[in-house]
Amino acid sequence: MHSVPQASILQALQWRYATKAFDPSRSIPSETWDALEASLVLTPSSFGLQPWKFIVVTDPDLKARLLPHCWNQRQVVDCSHLVVFCAKQDMDAAYIDQYIAHTASLRGTTPDALQGFRDLMAGCLLNVGSLATDLPEWATRQAYIALGQFMLAAALLNVDACPMEGFLPDPLNQELGLLNSGFRAVVLCPVGFRSPDDAYALAPKVRWPSSHVVEYRAK
Amino acid sequence: MHSVPQASILQALQWRYATKAFDPSRSIPSETWDALEASLVLTPSSFGLQPWKFIVVTDPDLKARLLPHCWNQRQVVDCSHLVVFCAKQDMDAAYIDQYIAHTASLRGTTPDALQGFRDLMAGCLLNVGSLATDLPEWATRQAYIALGQFMLAAALLNVDACPMEGFLPDPLNQELGLLNSGFRAVVLCPVGFRSPDDAYALAPKVRWPSSHVVEYRAK
Repeated sequence: MHSVPQASILQALQWRYATKAFDPSRSIPSETWDALEASLVLTPSSFGLQPWKFIVVTDPDLKARLLPHCWNQRQVVDCSHLVVFCAKQDMDAAYIDQYIAHTASLRGTTPDALQGFRDLMAGCLLNVGSLATDLPEWATRQAYIALGQFMLAAALLNVDACPMEGFLPDPLNQELGLLNSGFRAVVLCPVGFRSPDDAYALAPKVRWPSSHVVEYRAK
Repeated sequence: MHSVPQASILQALQWRYATKAFDPSRSIPSETWDALEASLVLTPSSFGLQPWKFIVVTDPDLKARLLPHCWNQRQVVDCSHLVVFCAKQDMDAAYIDQYIAHTASLRGTTPDALQGFRDLMAGCLLNVGSLATDLPEWATRQAYIALGQFMLAAALLNVDACPMEGFLPDPLNQELGLLNSGFRAVVLCPVGFRSPDDAYALAPKVRWPSSHVVEYRAK
């Protein structure tokens, strides 16, 4: 059993915060990063379609070029790894077929045997007015699942993170060469290690009380 | 230090799957649920505004009434706890002021001292054409962060989960009494324990290779 103590999860959730200042001298060790990469790749998604790409920037020159597009938030350059969560902008039968073929291959079956699953996905995603009337937004939501999973994984590994929606999408996408890629950056997450000088690390965490946000419907 | 072994996280990520069949006889122990509730409440969000509500359904009669609105997916009734992730549908100065007051109170300062932060949030969220041109969608993305964090926390605690976008929003919101609440259900996540008969538990996990979805930009 892989079970982790509840206390470890709660401690990680209390320990983490939106890091304002990273220590630019510290890099995430490669074996730790490998686990974080796995947490991205293994993220659950709608139908398992994984409509995303994760760009991981460690090049200091590229970080510096991205900085002005990120409201000059220093975390972008001072972090160890800047993760750019990108959402797929379209969905078509070819992508679904590719996914079905991949699934069939991994599970030792044939695409024909998965025809019902294929038709369900196509019906939901390729028909206007169905589940996903806005495919880029549907894909963006999936990328946010990855963000949530990634931030908890980071905290569990004592890696600091700062989720970041404050950036200028057009120049950032252009700088990353995404304009004609079929993907767009939707949210950023610099990760690394907090600076000992970051006073925010000690500020009490601000959350609504449980009773304000959790509502039980029990018998 | 709360650090959790990388192997535990990887094992949890490999162990979890979108559970097709729950064991209806098993309930999540209350101390385990407490940790899962904490993972919801402590989810990071944009500006920390927590524009969400989590409805936790354990009442079997209510589950049964929700079933037809959830494509008759049995997980809704057979799970231990059905979590309904709800996104706040509006945002106004009063909410932001309430959050500022709460922050000031927790951090031993005054709302006036947080005026710059307040103005930043108001500028981003209350002005058409700024960060959040679509507030319900902005709130939905935040709820998906909670979903990602919650699913990893569940897996770490050996609790099974099945994220679920397939439901009929209008009747489900009506059944939950949300129509005039300012919140709407955006995604569901039944949690509990897999049935020993669920063959999907043993199916190989389907993910794109890392090289397909992770792109490094190193020096």
